[in-house]
Amino acid sequence: MPASYAYLGPEGTFTEVALRTLPEAATRELNPYVSVQSALDAVRTGEAEAAFVPIENSVEGGITTTLDELVAGEPLMIYREVLLSITFALLVRPGTKLADIKTVSAHPAAQPQVRNWLRAHLPDALWESAASNADAARLVQEGRYDAAFAGEFAAARYGLEALETGIHDAENAQTRFVLVGRPARPAAPTGADKTSVVLWQRDDHPGALRDLLGEFASRGINLMLLQSRPTGAGIGNYCFCVDAEGHISDRRMAETLMGLRRVCLQVRFLGSYPRADITPGEARPTLPGTSDEEFMAAADWVARCQDGRF
Amino acid sequence: MPASYAYLGPEGTFTEVALRTLPEAATRELNPYVSVQSALDAVRTGEAEAAFVPIENSVEGGITTTLDELVAGEPLMIYREVLLSITFALLVRPGTKLADIKTVSAHPAAQPQVRNWLRAHLPDALWESAASNADAARLVQEGRYDAAFAGEFAAARYGLEALETGIHDAENAQTRFVLVGRPARPAAPTGADKTSVVLWQRDDHPGALRDLLGEFASRGINLMLLQSRPTGAGIGNYCFCVDAEGHISDRRMAETLMGLRRVCLQVRFLGSYPRADITPGEARPTLPGTSDEEFMAAADWVARCQDGRF
Repeated sequence: MPASYAYLGPEGTFTEVALRTLPEAATRELNPYVSVQSALDAVRTGEAEAAFVPIENSVEGGITTTLDELVAGEPLMIYREVLLSITFALLVRPGTKLADIKTVSAHPAAQPQVRNWLRAHLPDALWESAASNADAARLVQEGRYDAAFAGEFAAARYGLEALETGIHDAENAQTRFVLVGRPARPAAPTGADKTSVVLWQRDDHPGALRDLLGEFASRGINLMLLQSRPTGAGIGNYCFCVDAEGHISDRRMAETLMGLRRVCLQVRFLGSYPRADITPGEARPTLPGTSDEEFMAAADWVARCQDGRF
Repeated sequence: MPASYAYLGPEGTFTEVALRTLPEAATRELNPYVSVQSALDAVRTGEAEAAFVPIENSVEGGITTTLDELVAGEPLMIYREVLLSITFALLVRPGTKLADIKTVSAHPAAQPQVRNWLRAHLPDALWESAASNADAARLVQEGRYDAAFAGEFAAARYGLEALETGIHDAENAQTRFVLVGRPARPAAPTGADKTSVVLWQRDDHPGALRDLLGEFASRGINLMLLQSRPTGAGIGNYCFCVDAEGHISDRRMAETLMGLRRVCLQVRFLGSYPRADITPGEARPTLPGTSDEEFMAAADWVARCQDGRF
């Protein structure tokens, strides 16, 4: 297996910073790719062992390019997730003052996070979108624009300095990234895990989505993400990307997945992996009647009834 | 094991007629008991192999004495059910004419079924309740009352004649009887079976009963009877006697029972047995996603996901 990770490039973006927080990244070659699609394709073709891409953003929601790539094509599996707090620095060529800035640049995704700051401090600056925040920094270095919004870590790489740091419109703005590989046995549960699936409904009767969510609720499984994505079969046709609390080796999750498999047209398992937002000690207690022990006791009771021993 | 069946007596009632429709009754000694309770006690003490008692009546609903006996005490199990159409004959001493009848008698349960007929044909006759319809017939034989409502089959036994037959206020009036024994392995499924349970809720949050019914609905299990009975723990405290379509050896029923066992305070299994109302050929098709095959395929899929083979 190639010991390399593909990631959404270029170098010097939040994605690379997030990837480097993973211990396993230290022992791999890290290769930037120009798009989420090309990074995931590198995994599907075997060129890379895994790909590291953004999947959710606390300001904008699910990152649809990534979701759509996971929903379709050869099955992939999420191995890990990383949460990164996103705050921007305003990067300029050394010596530039705030009053000198006529043009600012960044990736379009940065805009909702710096909009208020811009209105307050640079109301007349012209916004120019770049392919990435790192690319915006490079264009500032080349003199094309006056300032770039990027991670503070990008300043050194492009010979810029941070005129301002900690810029973020939304408090606790975070981006969630995932390490995606080919299907394999999921890592053992840690006690604070999450399971991702894609669900296609069998039909569209009234209450169909409620019935589907009932499969989770009746086994005491809490949802963390429900994002609808068009199936491509016309207006009104959606599938659902779902993140749910728990691990496929939990009895309650296994039974939920079996129920979904029975009632849905199709279910795609995207993996069970450790949650980045909490540690096992912070996981909420399971609802009464939904622990592994209670599942096993109930199965044992039914077996006894089937045998006439009650 | 004693080869005798206890039944709710006396002889010559609808209960005895219903019991004699069971092939196995031909090889047993049939002993009448004075009450449902004493017949069931005969099973609990080992005096009788099984007891045959009425449990539901299409005019009046669940027969609470029987339900309460099954809910409490040593566990018992329902082996069989019998449905009997109930129509009454007006039994009189030979020679009696309609105009001669001043008093009529029957078990109180018969009254709602003959009320309209009485109003139309004997508006002035005085109603006298008897311990059973057979007892009413005996009292007519002894000259105590002028007429009794009972099964036509009781006429010969008491030297009476039927002045009128086929009396029934409600069309399709039926009584359901059950053969109850000690816990044992339920008979194999026939394809048209029913499963009876008693459910005690864990708590009384809003939607608690809906959640409980959702355990059946989400596995495509249809209910045939839902009768609440006081638990004896004060006003507002009820348990639920439930009859549901299917056999405990059906995957969907087994998973439903496991779910109920997990979410309920207590579940009492009362047996899986052939339905008397339909034959296997008339059983409704299972909902999509709830056949044994689909349960097994879903379990296999989850096992493959757990192994990384997807």
